Amino acid sequence: MAPTYTLYGWGNTASTGIHWILAELAASSEVTYEFVDVDLPHKQQKEAAYLDINPKGRVPTLIVDGKPVTETGAIGLLLSELHPKSGLAPAPGTPSRAKFLETHTYVVNSLLPALRDWMYADKDQTNPEYAHGIRLLTLQRLNSIYALLDAQLAQSKYLVSDDEPTEVDFIMTATLSWDGFIDILSGQHPNLKKYTETMRSRPAWKYIEKKEGIVLKVQPWEEQYLTIKGNL
Amino acid sequence: MAPTYTLYGWGNTASTGIHWILAELAASSEVTYEFVDVDLPHKQQKEAAYLDINPKGRVPTLIVDGKPVTETGAIGLLLSELHPKSGLAPAPGTPSRAKFLETHTYVVNSLLPALRDWMYADKDQTNPEYAHGIRLLTLQRLNSIYALLDAQLAQSKYLVSDDEPTEVDFIMTATLSWDGFIDILSGQHPNLKKYTETMRSRPAWKYIEKKEGIVLKVQPWEEQYLTIKGNL
Repeated sequence: MAPTYTLYGWGNTASTGIHWILAELAASSEVTYEFVDVDLPHKQQKEAAYLDINPKGRVPTLIVDGKPVTETGAIGLLLSELHPKSGLAPAPGTPSRAKFLETHTYVVNSLLPALRDWMYADKDQTNPEYAHGIRLLTLQRLNSIYALLDAQLAQSKYLVSDDEPTEVDFIMTATLSWDGFIDILSGQHPNLKKYTETMRSRPAWKYIEKKEGIVLKVQPWEEQYLTIKGNL
Repeated sequence: MAPTYTLYGWGNTASTGIHWILAELAASSEVTYEFVDVDLPHKQQKEAAYLDINPKGRVPTLIVDGKPVTETGAIGLLLSELHPKSGLAPAPGTPSRAKFLETHTYVVNSLLPALRDWMYADKDQTNPEYAHGIRLLTLQRLNSIYALLDAQLAQSKYLVSDDEPTEVDFIMTATLSWDGFIDILSGQHPNLKKYTETMRSRPAWKYIEKKEGIVLKVQPWEEQYLTIKGNL
Protein backbone atom coordinates (compact mmCIF):
# COMPACT_ATOMS: atom_id res chain seq x y z
CA MET A 1 0.00 0.00 0.00
CA ALA A 2 1.20 3.51 -0.80
CA PRO A 3 2.36 5.42 2.31
CA THR A 4 0.28 8.35 3.51
CA TYR A 5 1.87 11.65 4.50
CA THR A 6 0.48 14.71 6.24
CA LEU A 7 1.90 18.05 5.16
CA TYR A 8 1.48 21.14 7.35
CA GLY A 9 1.76 24.22 5.18
CA TRP A 10 0.17 27.35 3.74
CA GLY A 11 -0.47 28.43 0.16
CA ASN A 12 2.44 29.97 -1.77
CA THR A 13 5.08 29.74 0.95
CA ALA A 14 8.08 27.54 1.73
CA SER A 15 5.74 24.54 1.86
CA THR A 16 4.74 24.87 -1.80
CA GLY A 17 7.77 22.97 -3.15
CA ILE A 18 7.05 20.00 -0.88
CA HIS A 19 3.34 20.13 -1.73
CA TRP A 20 4.33 19.95 -5.40
CA ILE A 21 6.62 16.94 -4.83
CA LEU A 22 3.79 15.14 -3.01
CA ALA A 23 1.39 15.95 -5.86
CA GLU A 24 3.92 14.47 -8.34
CA LEU A 25 4.31 11.32 -6.22
CA ALA A 26 0.52 11.04 -5.84
CA ALA A 27 0.08 11.36 -9.62
CA SER A 28 2.13 8.19 -10.09
CA SER A 29 0.28 6.51 -7.17
CA GLU A 30 3.47 6.40 -5.08
CA VAL A 31 1.81 8.10 -2.10
CA THR A 32 -1.37 9.58 -0.75
CA TYR A 33 -1.25 12.73 1.36
CA GLU A 34 -3.30 15.17 3.34
CA PHE A 35 -2.60 18.92 3.44
CA VAL A 36 -3.25 20.71 6.74
CA ASP A 37 -3.48 24.50 6.67
CA VAL A 38 -1.24 26.43 9.05
CA ASP A 39 -2.78 29.90 8.86
CA LEU A 40 0.35 32.07 8.59
CA PRO A 41 -1.51 35.41 8.28
CA HIS A 42 -3.08 34.63 11.67
CA LYS A 43 0.29 33.43 13.08
CA GLN A 44 -0.96 29.91 13.72
CA GLN A 45 2.64 28.75 13.24
CA LYS A 46 3.51 30.43 16.55
CA GLU A 47 0.70 28.76 18.53
CA ALA A 48 1.53 26.06 21.07
CA ALA A 49 -0.23 23.27 19.12
CA TYR A 50 1.97 23.87 16.07
CA LEU A 51 5.17 24.59 18.02
CA ASP A 52 4.69 21.13 19.54
CA ILE A 53 5.32 19.54 16.16
CA ASN A 54 7.72 22.21 14.83
CA PRO A 55 9.53 24.25 17.52
CA LYS A 56 10.91 26.55 14.82
CA GLY A 57 7.40 27.81 14.07
CA ARG A 58 7.83 27.58 10.33
CA VAL A 59 6.27 25.65 7.47
CA PRO A 60 6.62 23.03 6.04
CA THR A 61 6.37 20.11 8.46
CA LEU A 62 5.82 16.63 7.04
CA ILE A 63 4.57 13.79 9.20
CA VAL A 64 6.45 10.61 8.26
CA ASP A 65 5.64 7.41 10.15
CA GLY A 66 3.90 9.49 12.81
CA LYS A 67 6.90 11.77 13.39
CA PRO A 68 7.31 15.40 12.28
CA VAL A 69 10.15 16.23 9.91
CA THR A 70 11.02 19.89 9.33
CA GLU A 71 13.22 21.80 6.85
CA THR A 72 12.31 21.87 3.15
CA GLY A 73 15.69 20.52 2.07
CA ALA A 74 15.57 17.64 4.54
CA ILE A 75 12.05 16.67 3.50
CA GLY A 76 13.08 16.76 -0.18
CA LEU A 77 16.06 14.46 0.46
CA LEU A 78 14.03 12.15 2.70
CA LEU A 79 11.25 11.74 0.10
CA SER A 80 13.87 10.97 -2.56
CA GLU A 81 15.24 8.20 -0.30
CA LEU A 82 11.83 6.80 0.65
CA HIS A 83 10.79 6.71 -3.03
CA PRO A 84 13.95 5.67 -4.88
CA LYS A 85 12.06 4.80 -8.09
CA SER A 86 10.52 8.27 -8.30
CA GLY A 87 13.61 9.84 -9.88
CA LEU A 88 13.56 12.60 -7.23
CA ALA A 89 17.34 12.09 -6.87
CA PRO A 90 20.05 10.13 -8.65
CA ALA A 91 20.93 7.16 -6.43
CA PRO A 92 24.04 7.36 -4.21
CA GLY A 93 27.07 6.11 -6.11
CA THR A 94 25.75 7.11 -9.55
CA PRO A 95 27.71 9.62 -11.71
CA SER A 96 25.37 12.57 -11.21
CA ARG A 97 25.04 12.16 -7.43
CA ALA A 98 27.72 14.75 -6.56
CA LYS A 99 26.17 17.32 -8.91
CA PHE A 100 22.76 16.64 -7.39
CA LEU A 101 23.98 17.10 -3.78
CA GLU A 102 25.89 20.24 -4.79
CA THR A 103 22.88 21.79 -6.53
CA HIS A 104 20.50 20.79 -3.75
CA THR A 105 22.81 22.36 -1.15
CA TYR A 106 23.37 25.55 -3.14
CA VAL A 107 19.61 26.10 -3.54
CA VAL A 108 18.98 25.32 0.13
CA ASN A 109 21.98 27.24 1.51
CA SER A 110 22.06 30.28 -0.80
CA LEU A 111 18.80 30.76 -2.70
CA LEU A 112 16.31 29.91 0.07
CA PRO A 113 17.94 32.12 2.76
CA ALA A 114 18.16 35.00 0.25
CA LEU A 115 14.47 34.65 -0.61
CA ARG A 116 13.58 34.48 3.07
CA ASP A 117 15.49 37.74 3.57
CA TRP A 118 13.73 39.29 0.60
CA MET A 119 10.24 38.46 1.82
CA TYR A 120 10.73 38.95 5.58
CA ALA A 121 13.48 41.59 6.03
CA ASP A 122 10.96 44.10 7.42
CA LYS A 123 9.23 41.52 9.64
CA ASP A 124 12.44 40.10 11.11
CA GLN A 125 13.49 43.42 12.59
CA THR A 126 11.98 46.81 13.04
CA ASN A 127 14.31 49.46 11.57
CA PRO A 128 13.02 50.14 8.03
CA GLU A 129 16.39 51.57 6.93
CA TYR A 130 18.10 48.31 7.85
CA ALA A 131 15.38 46.28 6.12
CA HIS A 132 16.06 48.31 2.97
CA GLY A 133 19.81 47.64 3.29
CA ILE A 134 19.20 43.93 3.73
CA ARG A 135 17.01 43.92 0.62
CA LEU A 136 19.65 45.75 -1.46
CA LEU A 137 22.24 43.14 -0.46
CA THR A 138 19.72 40.36 -1.09
CA LEU A 139 19.03 41.71 -4.57
CA GLN A 140 22.74 41.46 -5.43
CA ARG A 141 22.81 37.94 -4.07
CA LEU A 142 19.69 36.84 -5.93
CA ASN A 143 21.12 38.19 -9.19
CA SER A 144 24.38 36.22 -8.72
CA ILE A 145 22.53 33.06 -7.74
CA TYR A 146 20.16 33.26 -10.71
CA ALA A 147 23.10 33.93 -13.08
CA LEU A 148 24.92 30.88 -11.78
CA LEU A 149 21.87 28.62 -12.04
CA ASP A 150 21.17 30.02 -15.52
CA ALA A 151 24.68 28.94 -16.59
CA GLN A 152 24.01 25.50 -15.15
CA LEU A 153 20.75 25.29 -17.13
CA ALA A 154 22.70 25.95 -20.34
CA GLN A 155 24.13 22.45 -19.84
CA SER A 156 20.98 20.46 -19.12
CA LYS A 157 17.20 20.79 -19.37
CA TYR A 158 16.77 20.44 -15.60
CA LEU A 159 19.25 21.54 -12.93
CA VAL A 160 20.89 18.12 -12.59
CA SER A 161 20.05 16.22 -15.78
CA ASP A 162 18.21 16.16 -19.09
CA ASP A 163 15.92 13.30 -18.14
CA GLU A 164 13.55 14.24 -15.38
CA PRO A 165 13.38 16.90 -12.68
CA THR A 166 14.81 16.04 -9.26
CA GLU A 167 13.47 17.31 -5.92
CA VAL A 168 15.62 20.43 -6.13
CA ASP A 169 13.86 21.47 -9.37
CA PHE A 170 10.50 21.40 -7.60
CA ILE A 171 11.82 23.24 -4.54
CA MET A 172 13.49 25.93 -6.63
CA THR A 173 10.75 26.47 -9.20
CA ALA A 174 8.16 26.79 -6.44
CA THR A 175 10.17 29.74 -5.06
CA LEU A 176 10.28 31.41 -8.51
CA SER A 177 6.50 31.68 -8.30
CA TRP A 178 6.37 33.35 -4.89
CA ASP A 179 5.47 36.64 -6.51
CA GLY A 180 5.72 38.78 -9.60
CA PHE A 181 8.96 40.52 -8.64
CA ILE A 182 10.84 37.24 -8.19
CA ASP A 183 9.36 36.05 -11.49
CA ILE A 184 10.60 39.19 -13.29
CA LEU A 185 14.03 39.05 -11.62
CA SER A 186 14.67 35.39 -12.46
CA GLY A 187 13.00 35.73 -15.87
CA GLN A 188 15.79 38.04 -17.05
CA HIS A 189 17.97 34.95 -17.40
CA PRO A 190 16.95 33.20 -20.63
CA ASN A 191 17.72 29.60 -19.64
CA LEU A 192 16.05 30.07 -16.30
CA LYS A 193 13.00 31.57 -17.99
CA LYS A 194 12.65 28.66 -20.39
CA TYR A 195 13.19 26.16 -17.57
CA THR A 196 10.52 27.81 -15.43
CA GLU A 197 8.06 27.56 -18.31
CA THR A 198 8.86 23.86 -18.76
CA MET A 199 8.44 23.18 -15.05
CA ARG A 200 5.21 25.19 -14.85
CA SER A 201 3.70 23.20 -17.72
CA ARG A 202 3.58 20.05 -15.57
CA PRO A 203 0.06 18.93 -14.64
CA ALA A 204 1.00 18.66 -10.95
CA TRP A 205 2.05 22.35 -10.96
CA LYS A 206 -1.22 23.39 -12.62
CA TYR A 207 -2.98 21.62 -9.79
CA ILE A 208 -0.85 23.29 -7.08
CA GLU A 209 -1.20 26.71 -8.69
CA LYS A 210 -4.97 26.49 -8.52
CA LYS A 211 -5.13 24.77 -5.14
CA GLU A 212 -2.81 27.31 -3.46
CA GLY A 213 -4.18 30.31 -5.38
CA ILE A 214 -0.79 31.34 -6.76
CA VAL A 215 -0.85 34.66 -8.62
CA LEU A 216 2.29 36.41 -9.93
CA LYS A 217 1.87 39.93 -8.59
CA VAL A 218 4.50 42.58 -7.79
CA GLN A 219 3.87 43.64 -4.17
CA PRO A 220 3.53 47.40 -3.49
CA TRP A 221 6.73 47.41 -1.36
CA GLU A 222 8.65 45.76 -4.21
CA GLU A 223 7.90 48.45 -6.77
CA GLN A 224 10.80 50.72 -5.74
CA TYR A 225 13.23 47.88 -6.49
CA LEU A 226 12.00 47.54 -10.08
CA THR A 227 13.76 50.76 -11.04
CA ILE A 228 17.19 50.17 -9.50
CA LYS A 229 19.70 50.49 -12.30
CA GLY A 230 21.84 47.44 -12.94
CA ASN A 231 19.46 45.14 -11.14
CA LEU A 232 16.48 45.11 -13.47
CA MET B 1 43.34 1.09 -1.44
CA ALA B 2 42.00 4.10 0.42
CA PRO B 3 40.76 6.84 -1.91
CA THR B 4 42.71 10.10 -2.11
CA TYR B 5 41.01 13.47 -1.99
CA THR B 6 42.27 16.97 -2.66
CA LEU B 7 40.73 19.75 -0.56
CA TYR B 8 41.03 23.39 -1.64
CA GLY B 9 40.66 25.60 1.39
CA TRP B 10 42.13 28.16 3.77
CA GLY B 11 42.74 28.06 7.51
CA ASN B 12 39.80 28.79 9.83
CA THR B 13 37.15 29.34 7.15
CA ALA B 14 34.22 27.41 5.70
CA SER B 15 36.68 24.69 4.61
CA THR B 16 37.68 23.87 8.21
CA GLY B 17 34.74 21.52 8.85
CA ILE B 18 35.54 19.47 5.75
CA HIS B 19 39.26 19.46 6.62
CA TRP B 20 38.29 18.07 10.03
CA ILE B 21 36.10 15.32 8.51
CA LEU B 22 39.01 14.30 6.24
CA ALA B 23 41.39 14.23 9.21
CA GLU B 24 38.93 11.96 11.06
CA LEU B 25 38.64 9.62 8.05
CA ALA B 26 42.43 9.64 7.62
CA ALA B 27 42.89 8.75 11.29
CA SER B 28 40.95 5.53 10.70
CA SER B 29 42.85 4.95 7.42
CA GLU B 30 39.66 5.38 5.39
CA VAL B 31 41.23 8.00 3.12
CA THR B 32 44.34 9.97 2.34
CA TYR B 33 44.11 13.61 1.34
CA GLU B 34 46.04 16.63 0.26
CA PHE B 35 45.22 20.19 1.38
CA VAL B 36 45.77 22.96 -1.18
CA ASP B 37 45.86 26.54 0.11
CA VAL B 38 43.55 29.04 -1.55
CA ASP B 39 44.95 32.31 -0.24
CA LEU B 40 41.74 34.17 0.69
CA PRO B 41 43.48 37.31 2.06
CA HIS B 42 45.07 37.72 -1.40
CA LYS B 43 41.75 36.92 -3.12
CA GLN B 44 43.10 33.83 -4.84
CA GLN B 45 39.55 32.44 -4.78
CA LYS B 46 38.60 35.06 -7.39
CA GLU B 47 41.47 34.21 -9.78
CA ALA B 48 40.70 32.43 -13.05
CA ALA B 49 42.57 29.25 -12.08
CA TYR B 50 40.39 28.75 -9.02
CA LEU B 51 37.16 29.94 -10.66
CA ASP B 52 37.75 27.17 -13.21
CA ILE B 53 37.20 24.56 -10.51
CA ASN B 54 34.72 26.57 -8.43
CA PRO B 55 32.80 29.28 -10.34
CA LYS B 56 31.35 30.56 -7.05
CA GLY B 57 34.82 31.66 -5.91
CA ARG B 58 34.41 30.20 -2.43
CA VAL B 59 36.07 27.52 -0.34
CA PRO B 60 35.83 24.57 0.17
CA THR B 61 36.17 22.59 -3.05
CA LEU B 62 36.86 18.86 -2.83
CA ILE B 63 38.20 16.90 -5.77
CA VAL B 64 36.44 13.53 -5.91
CA ASP B 65 37.36 11.14 -8.74
CA GLY B 66 38.99 14.01 -10.56
CA LYS B 67 35.91 16.25 -10.40
CA PRO B 68 35.39 19.31 -8.19
CA VAL B 69 32.52 19.23 -5.70
CA THR B 70 31.51 22.49 -3.98
CA GLU B 71 29.28 23.41 -1.02
CA THR B 72 30.21 22.33 2.49
CA GLY B 73 26.87 20.58 3.06
CA ALA B 74 27.08 18.64 -0.20
CA ILE B 75 30.65 17.52 0.50
CA GLY B 76 29.65 16.39 3.99
CA LEU B 77 26.74 14.30 2.65
CA LEU B 78 28.85 12.91 -0.19
CA LEU B 79 31.65 11.80 2.14
CA SER B 80 29.07 10.11 4.40
CA GLU B 81 27.80 8.16 1.37
CA LEU B 82 31.25 7.27 0.05
CA HIS B 83 32.33 6.04 3.51
CA PRO B 84 29.22 4.34 4.90
CA LYS B 85 31.16 2.57 7.66
CA SER B 86 32.55 5.85 9.00
CA GLY B 87 29.41 6.70 10.96
CA LEU B 88 29.35 10.17 9.35
CA ALA B 89 25.60 9.67 8.83
CA PRO B 90 22.97 7.12 9.86
CA ALA B 91 22.18 5.01 6.78
CA PRO B 92 19.06 5.80 4.74
CA GLY B 93 16.09 3.87 6.11
CA THR B 94 17.38 3.78 9.71
CA PRO B 95 15.35 5.39 12.53
CA SER B 96 17.58 8.43 13.04
CA ARG B 97 17.91 9.26 9.33
CA ALA B 98 15.12 11.89 9.32
CA LYS B 99 16.58 13.64 12.39
CA PHE B 100 20.00 13.61 10.73
CA LEU B 101 18.74 15.16 7.46
CA GLU B 102 16.73 17.73 9.40
CA THR B 103 19.69 18.75 11.56
CA HIS B 104 22.10 18.78 8.63
CA THR B 105 19.71 21.00 6.67
CA TYR B 106 19.06 23.37 9.57
CA VAL B 107 22.78 23.91 10.14
CA VAL B 108 23.43 24.37 6.42
CA ASN B 109 20.36 26.51 5.70
CA SER B 110 20.17 28.64 8.87
CA LEU B 111 23.42 28.63 10.84
CA LEU B 112 25.92 28.80 7.97
CA PRO B 113 24.21 31.68 6.11
CA ALA B 114 23.89 33.59 9.42
CA LEU B 115 27.59 33.14 10.14
CA ARG B 116 28.48 34.17 6.61
CA ASP B 117 26.44 37.35 7.16
CA TRP B 118 28.14 37.93 10.50
CA MET B 119 31.65 37.67 9.08
CA TYR B 120 31.14 39.31 5.68
CA ALA B 121 28.30 41.85 6.08
CA ASP B 122 30.72 44.76 5.57
CA LYS B 123 32.50 43.11 2.65
CA ASP B 124 29.36 42.10 0.77
CA GLN B 125 28.18 45.67 0.42
CA THR B 126 29.56 49.09 1.11
CA ASN B 127 27.16 51.05 3.32
CA PRO B 128 28.42 50.60 6.91
CA GLU B 129 25.02 51.49 8.40
CA TYR B 130 23.44 48.63 6.46
CA ALA B 131 26.24 46.27 7.47
CA HIS B 132 25.50 47.14 11.09
CA GLY B 133 21.79 46.49 10.56
CA ILE B 134 22.52 43.14 8.97
CA ARG B 135 24.71 42.22 11.93
CA LEU B 136 22.03 43.18 14.46
CA LEU B 137 19.54 40.94 12.66
CA THR B 138 22.15 38.19 12.39
CA LEU B 139 22.82 38.37 16.12
CA GLN B 140 19.12 37.74 16.84
CA ARG B 141 19.17 34.84 14.41
CA LEU B 142 22.33 33.31 15.86
CA ASN B 143 20.87 33.48 19.36
CA SER B 144 17.69 31.66 18.27
CA ILE B 145 19.65 29.05 16.34
CA TYR B 146 22.02 28.37 19.23
CA ALA B 147 19.08 28.14 21.67
CA LEU B 148 17.36 25.60 19.44
CA LEU B 149 20.50 23.49 18.99
CA ASP B 150 21.17 23.73 22.73
CA ALA B 151 17.69 22.25 23.39
CA GLN B 152 18.48 19.46 20.92
CA LEU B 153 21.75 18.76 22.76
CA ALA B 154 19.80 18.27 26.00
CA GLN B 155 18.49 15.07 24.39
CA SER B 156 21.71 13.53 23.09
CA LYS B 157 25.48 13.90 23.44
CA TYR B 158 25.89 14.80 19.77
CA LEU B 159 23.36 16.58 17.59
CA VAL B 160 21.86 13.41 16.16
CA SER B 161 22.78 10.62 18.58
CA ASP B 162 24.64 9.57 21.69
CA ASP B 163 27.04 7.24 19.88
CA GLU B 164 29.35 9.12 17.58
CA PRO B 165 29.40 12.51 15.88
CA THR B 166 27.98 12.74 12.36
CA GLU B 167 29.27 15.06 9.62
CA VAL B 168 26.99 17.87 10.81
CA ASP B 169 28.72 17.87 14.22
CA PHE B 170 32.08 18.51 12.55
CA ILE B 171 30.68 21.17 10.22
CA MET B 172 28.92 22.97 13.05
CA THR B 173 31.64 22.77 15.68
CA ALA B 174 34.20 24.07 13.20
CA THR B 175 32.10 27.23 12.83
CA LEU B 176 31.93 27.68 16.62
CA SER B 177 35.70 28.16 16.54
CA TRP B 178 35.74 30.84 13.85
CA ASP B 179 36.56 33.48 16.43
CA GLY B 180 36.23 34.49 20.05
CA PHE B 181 32.93 36.32 19.68
CA ILE B 182 31.17 33.31 18.18
CA ASP B 183 32.70 31.18 20.92
CA ILE B 184 31.36 33.52 23.63
CA LEU B 185 27.93 33.80 21.99
CA SER B 186 27.43 30.04 21.59
CA GLY B 187 29.09 29.32 24.96
CA GLN B 188 26.22 31.03 26.80
CA HIS B 189 24.18 27.92 26.12
CA PRO B 190 25.28 25.26 28.62
CA ASN B 191 24.63 22.13 26.54
CA LEU B 192 26.26 23.71 23.53
CA LYS B 193 29.26 24.71 25.63
CA LYS B 194 29.73 21.19 26.96
CA TYR B 195 29.27 19.71 23.49
CA THR B 196 31.87 22.06 22.01
CA GLU B 197 34.37 20.99 24.69
CA THR B 198 33.69 17.31 23.93
CA MET B 199 34.11 17.87 20.19
CA ARG B 200 37.27 19.97 20.67
CA SER B 201 38.87 17.21 22.76
CA ARG B 202 39.08 14.93 19.70
CA PRO B 203 42.64 14.31 18.49
CA ALA B 204 41.70 15.20 14.90
CA TRP B 205 40.52 18.65 16.09
CA LYS B 206 43.75 19.22 18.02
CA TYR B 207 45.56 18.51 14.77
CA ILE B 208 43.35 20.88 12.73
CA GLU B 209 43.59 23.62 15.36
CA LYS B 210 47.36 23.61 15.14
CA LYS B 211 47.57 23.07 11.38
CA GLU B 212 45.15 25.92 10.60
CA GLY B 213 46.41 28.20 13.37
CA ILE B 214 43.01 28.60 14.99
CA VAL B 215 42.94 31.15 17.83
CA LEU B 216 39.76 32.26 19.61
CA LYS B 217 40.02 36.03 19.46
CA VAL B 218 37.30 38.70 19.55
CA GLN B 219 37.87 40.90 16.47
CA PRO B 220 38.04 44.69 17.03
CA TRP B 221 34.86 45.25 14.99
CA GLU B 222 33.04 42.71 17.14
CA GLU B 223 33.69 44.46 20.45
CA GLN B 224 30.71 46.83 20.17
CA TYR B 225 28.39 43.81 19.95
CA LEU B 226 29.63 42.39 23.25
CA THR B 227 27.76 45.08 25.16
CA ILE B 228 24.37 44.88 23.49
CA LYS B 229 21.84 44.22 26.23
CA GLY B 230 19.82 41.05 25.84
CA ASN B 231 22.28 39.53 23.44
CA LEU B 232 25.24 38.85 25.66
